[in-house]
Amino acid sequence: MVAPVITLTTDFGDGDPYAAAMKGVILSRCPEARIVDLGHGIQPRDIMEGALFLAGAVPYFPPGTIHVAVVDPGVGTDRLPIVAKAAGQIVVCPDNGLLTLLTHLHTLEEVRAIENPAFMLDEVSPTFHGRDIFAPAAATIASGKNVEEAGTLLNAIELLDELPRPCLEEEGHVEGAIIHADRFGNLITNIHRSMLNENVAITTRVGDTRLSTLLRTYGDAPPNEALALIGSSNFLEIAINGGSARDRLGLDRGDSVDLRW
Amino acid sequence: MVAPVITLTTDFGDGDPYAAAMKGVILSRCPEARIVDLGHGIQPRDIMEGALFLAGAVPYFPPGTIHVAVVDPGVGTDRLPIVAKAAGQIVVCPDNGLLTLLTHLHTLEEVRAIENPAFMLDEVSPTFHGRDIFAPAAATIASGKNVEEAGTLLNAIELLDELPRPCLEEEGHVEGAIIHADRFGNLITNIHRSMLNENVAITTRVGDTRLSTLLRTYGDAPPNEALALIGSSNFLEIAINGGSARDRLGLDRGDSVDLRW
Amino acid sequence: MVAPVITLTTDFGDGDPYAAAMKGVILSRCPEARIVDLGHGIQPRDIMEGALFLAGAVPYFPPGTIHVAVVDPGVGTDRLPIVAKAAGQIVVCPDNGLLTLLTHLHTLEEVRAIENPAFMLDEVSPTFHGRDIFAPAAATIASGKNVEEAGTLLNAIELLDELPRPCLEEEGHVEGAIIHADRFGNLITNIHRSMLNENVAITTRVGDTRLSTLLRTYGDAPPNEALALIGSSNFLEIAINGGSARDRLGLDRGDSVDLRW
Repeated sequence: MVAPVITLTTDFGDGDPYAAAMKGVILSRCPEARIVDLGHGIQPRDIMEGALFLAGAVPYFPPGTIHVAVVDPGVGTDRLPIVAKAAGQIVVCPDNGLLTLLTHLHTLEEVRAIENPAFMLDEVSPTFHGRDIFAPAAATIASGKNVEEAGTLLNAIELLDELPRPCLEEEGHVEGAIIHADRFGNLITNIHRSMLNENVAITTRVGDTRLSTLLRTYGDAPPNEALALIGSSNFLEIAINGGSARDRLGLDRGDSVDLRW
Repeated sequence: MVAPVITLTTDFGDGDPYAAAMKGVILSRCPEARIVDLGHGIQPRDIMEGALFLAGAVPYFPPGTIHVAVVDPGVGTDRLPIVAKAAGQIVVCPDNGLLTLLTHLHTLEEVRAIENPAFMLDEVSPTFHGRDIFAPAAATIASGKNVEEAGTLLNAIELLDELPRPCLEEEGHVEGAIIHADRFGNLITNIHRSMLNENVAITTRVGDTRLSTLLRTYGDAPPNEALALIGSSNFLEIAINGGSARDRLGLDRGDSVDLRW
Repeated sequence: MVAPVITLTTDFGDGDPYAAAMKGVILSRCPEARIVDLGHGIQPRDIMEGALFLAGAVPYFPPGTIHVAVVDPGVGTDRLPIVAKAAGQIVVCPDNGLLTLLTHLHTLEEVRAIENPAFMLDEVSPTFHGRDIFAPAAATIASGKNVEEAGTLLNAIELLDELPRPCLEEEGHVEGAIIHADRFGNLITNIHRSMLNENVAITTRVGDTRLSTLLRTYGDAPPNEALALIGSSNFLEIAINGGSARDRLGLDRGDSVDLRW
């Protein structure tokens, strides 16, 4: 049997020792764990970005993989630390909305508060639960302890309500929004492929830009021209072939997108 | 027995092949080694930041873990490559002050110059000891060679003297300094919890800001308000709930902090 | 026998879930694989930077290591996905020039198109071959499938022709160019040590700067002064002791370098 994998997703960046301390705690408690970094570049305190990240990464892992996610502006307040089973995976994180998108797309099978001191360090600081609760909880589960022992079963998790939901205004007209600009400047919207009729001509309006077809990939547009396509997570995406749509179109998260066909 | 862990902490960033070449050297010499990235985002040549990083991460690892740290502006000059045992860990690094904070807080058990060619690549360039000395030395130790064979026992290591030490001016009055601004803009000072009397009201002055209490966590202040707290490494920290204290208070490393109670 | 290593080099950065999804795909298909991040900070779509990165990192790994490299602005167009054996290593990447520098310095032993659906996910999106082709292909090879089964043998790979080649104008006079500025601001040129006579005085001109000797290492110049040296990959490099040559000399990739001796 292969050694357990524990993945890490945080807003801790690459220049502070926070993610590193978590790794030390994990290996101290579960020496055979295999640590896999998913990404530490979530914008500081940006739960929405963390939720998008998790939805785009977690489902690709083998069932039963343990994931730790820490974007935790409310650390030490009354928001709960939780362990959730969703999409066949186990996620350890604060109950602050980080699982919103994952559970939109996949069943939330079980969620528990982390209350059992055996899942935590002996001393828990009020400002760093990544190190003191989430890392040791993940390592404790990786060592074979049952998730059931973590704490009370919860009926629900916190969900981000700021998350815009696309709106089918009428047949052939959807209003949505940009929910993320990625490192390439591609503008990812909340309009899922399933809302569209891809067999007819679709006109996308976003800012001052009007795009009259959906293309298949970036290189199908002329260099430096804007295009709309269905991205790799099945959401509508606005891009520039060879450049940043965010920079060149002056658009970003929150801006609205209008689709008609 | 689990495979040996070798951690990496550098100022090499994520866009140049320097840390990657070190990983190749490690796996060539010790194929079963498990490489764990601590962080490659130390500011270029910033030994002080590297020293803070190591002190905040290294002690959390299982005893005997091997750590490689490379922030090395003096590479190829007469500064020595060393291997040190401290805090129960083994650290391979240049002797330039990187261990200053780790050895303030934990015993330095042993330190040796790396002189034995068996701990290095056959050819050692004058500009990249990370690849040519530190990585192979760590892998050699991970493969079972004794630290004692690395080279001469040293009596002392280089310490950063620029590091400000807090000063107990009189009972109830401490003068310290900001020693680090983290990715969140939290301002971490050199004033350790042990210098304070937390049972009485403490007034913190920093720049134009005056904070009359110590809070427990960030979310205990109103949104966007400044606060003082004892951070997760037990040092006094100035923060803004939900924002960057560095940006909003206009303060950074080196600025002084005055505490009275 | 140790578990297979799969390395990742991409321009996906640390804040989007793209590299993370690739890791999930790899572990789903080859659960025992050991994933090693080489770097995800290649500038977006910058094939030339990716090619330099690979040449500086890949050759240090144990023979037979599997590397995935994704800098892929032409994803989904007619550029081929390939698997190449070079420098004793196996590299899976788009055929867009990423292997240009690796194969300048090392023999290209074999290259094949990836055509066999057994090397891909069941569904291949037109915009994310990192997840849908390159990651599963690497994991398939790591699981023991022969590279020969990937697809048709190719006679040649795409090479970057924009890559400037240094020119020996006459004996004792070389014209080259800066091909990369690293995180430290060191300016790395395309002039290899083998083109020079290091036994005589060499004068380097770059921009307004004239350097009359080759030094051994950065610290051999006075603080904050410019110097020329042979860098750790055996190419001529222009640097500032303790600072960024790119920023202070106002030079960057593409600027020419004139050497006389």
